[in-house]
Amino acid sequence: MSADILTLNAGSSSIKFALYAAGAAPALRAKGQVEGIGVAPRLKARAADGAVLADAPYEAGGGHDTALERIMALIAQAFPGATVAAVGHRVVHGGPDFAAPVRVDAAVLAKLETYAPFAPLHQPHNLAAVRAAMAAFPDAAQVACFDTAFHRGQPWVSDTFALPRRFHAEGVRRYGFHGLSYDFVSRELARRDPERGRGRAIICHLGAGASLCAIEEGRAMGSTMGFTALDGLPMATRCGQIDPGVLLYLMTERGMDANAISDLLYGESGLKGLSGISSDMRALEASDAPEAREAVDYFTHRVRREIGGLAAVLGGLDALVFTAGIGENSATVRAAVCADLGWMGVALDAEANAAGAAVISAADAPVRVYVIATDEERVIAEAAIRFA
Amino acid sequence: MSADILTLNAGSSSIKFALYAAGAAPALRAKGQVEGIGVAPRLKARAADGAVLADAPYEAGGGHDTALERIMALIAQAFPGATVAAVGHRVVHGGPDFAAPVRVDAAVLAKLETYAPFAPLHQPHNLAAVRAAMAAFPDAAQVACFDTAFHRGQPWVSDTFALPRRFHAEGVRRYGFHGLSYDFVSRELARRDPERGRGRAIICHLGAGASLCAIEEGRAMGSTMGFTALDGLPMATRCGQIDPGVLLYLMTERGMDANAISDLLYGESGLKGLSGISSDMRALEASDAPEAREAVDYFTHRVRREIGGLAAVLGGLDALVFTAGIGENSATVRAAVCADLGWMGVALDAEANAAGAAVISAADAPVRVYVIATDEERVIAEAAIRFA
Repeated sequence: MSADILTLNAGSSSIKFALYAAGAAPALRAKGQVEGIGVAPRLKARAADGAVLADAPYEAGGGHDTALERIMALIAQAFPGATVAAVGHRVVHGGPDFAAPVRVDAAVLAKLETYAPFAPLHQPHNLAAVRAAMAAFPDAAQVACFDTAFHRGQPWVSDTFALPRRFHAEGVRRYGFHGLSYDFVSRELARRDPERGRGRAIICHLGAGASLCAIEEGRAMGSTMGFTALDGLPMATRCGQIDPGVLLYLMTERGMDANAISDLLYGESGLKGLSGISSDMRALEASDAPEAREAVDYFTHRVRREIGGLAAVLGGLDALVFTAGIGENSATVRAAVCADLGWMGVALDAEANAAGAAVISAADAPVRVYVIATDEERVIAEAAIRFA
Repeated sequence: MSADILTLNAGSSSIKFALYAAGAAPALRAKGQVEGIGVAPRLKARAADGAVLADAPYEAGGGHDTALERIMALIAQAFPGATVAAVGHRVVHGGPDFAAPVRVDAAVLAKLETYAPFAPLHQPHNLAAVRAAMAAFPDAAQVACFDTAFHRGQPWVSDTFALPRRFHAEGVRRYGFHGLSYDFVSRELARRDPERGRGRAIICHLGAGASLCAIEEGRAMGSTMGFTALDGLPMATRCGQIDPGVLLYLMTERGMDANAISDLLYGESGLKGLSGISSDMRALEASDAPEAREAVDYFTHRVRREIGGLAAVLGGLDALVFTAGIGENSATVRAAVCADLGWMGVALDAEANAAGAAVISAADAPVRVYVIATDEERVIAEAAIRFA
């Protein structure tokens, strides 16, 4: 028998999971996902040492409950004696109130359901997984960890839109997202560089979803994402910052309804829309097409512009951190973003950047630039342990 | 007989006008406006020396044609022998093609009408005035001067949204506005300070409408306004930058249609919405209410953040210019905007700022900060003279 922690991250057609042995520092035992839920489900999993534990389809038809049963069966088979003492859930939206992970009971679950209108594409799937896990592990603590929580202490000017005041009171706020990643990376920065970790830092979470967060003394001061995961930087298929007048134009002049506009802005825009080639940064970097280069140029331009904006929020910059898929792996994106930031004290060491070193800034540059691999599952597992 | 230039700036319920004597530098003869068109029209005008030429209501009922007749009658009475050789029109939208003022004929007018969907609240009124002036002054050159023209040479990354490529081709672009003001101010900056006028400058046009423009060697490099005059900074009653997801939420969760959302974002937001007190910066500065202070804080916070963003677009900053109603007159807004910009070389001379001096930066600050009174009518008059 061992006390284990299961983490779940449920999307519309997938559940990602990880299993950790509980302890002061949780030890990863396995990681995997069910994808294609409902259509062509497939369970994949690897042990901590990389050994394949599962990689096979199963019969279509079941939903998230079935997927969770498959995950449980795999764990029982691969780790006999494992006991799930707590399940940590990634929940996209914690609304105005949740600034930290919370143990989910019926009252909390009811409260979290009221935030579904703020994140209709994600929140219902997140909560479906919570309910399924409550049924599957009735004795385990269910712990919700929010993408919005990290930002909740941010100053009011970073939290509001310039709408009539009642809207902020009613929950129309700049929530910010990717908070589990910012939590992990900001603590890792403080561990590696205590002085700059207490200073002014911008973390660039650049993946299929992308945002920046300005941090001072470890506290969130502002972000590029707002009310939803649509605002700020251009992303794989999302538009990022856009004039609200464009939406009014699409409604009045093109007769598009909310669903059509949502499909356009969430699914057909960003790198995919600008390039017309791919939503994947790696494919665009490998392409010779001018449209691919333009899409990458637009992406790095907007990252640079938002870095300038958040540096102004912080009143200057001590550290710049790149994380997530693109941030950790694309030396060319990091180089392009930093190329014209010399005026604010950013200068890369070209070799260190090409090698993806932990520190990629030039030795004499005032701003230290880091590459830090994020680990959102670990943040969830650590939170869940506290309630186990 | 004298050759004169008339400038017209027609809104939904007003026509502003100015009369200039043509010449190498046009000399102002009179300035005024008809307001309350259709409801409670009133003609106001002053001569260049400030003497009141008119300040009286006239019978309701007539539209823009009647207003223009009233203006013409006043000119004929106050300036016998005046001959209007050219009429310069402020036209908000020049679309993708017009990067300079243009003489309006039937073909140009037809083209400009196709841009009405991009600016439905302004373009039809602007063009109605052009048509009325064509009828009233059949022998005069009609010259359209565009708020968008100054920005047309900006780099592609500043001109596009991250939408599918066809949208840019179809005219959904970051046009930018306040271009007549940027034209005047950037040339005035170059006249006063030839070195910095060739360098990297940000012009802060802060009035009831507000935007910033980044300029390098006199060329527009990027702006805070995009497709419409709704984006970017918060304004008197407009929201400025907002998550597109908020509009989707208003549509799906609150059942608001395009008209209701447009009314909210154009007319009920910005300083008015945030304060719940007034849309007028002077009233908010005079108020002791915390809501008034918060609205001003939000405004200056967003200006500062966007200055940082545009400095990143320029790769640093040589000059910062404040203009328009708030920019020219509010020392407290200028001080608040610049307070935490020391990291980028901005430092004010408190006395010079309080006095509204031409140069308000500290003598040893790397970035020179100017207050320059804008004069959009003069830009229009100068353009019209070239076609007279």
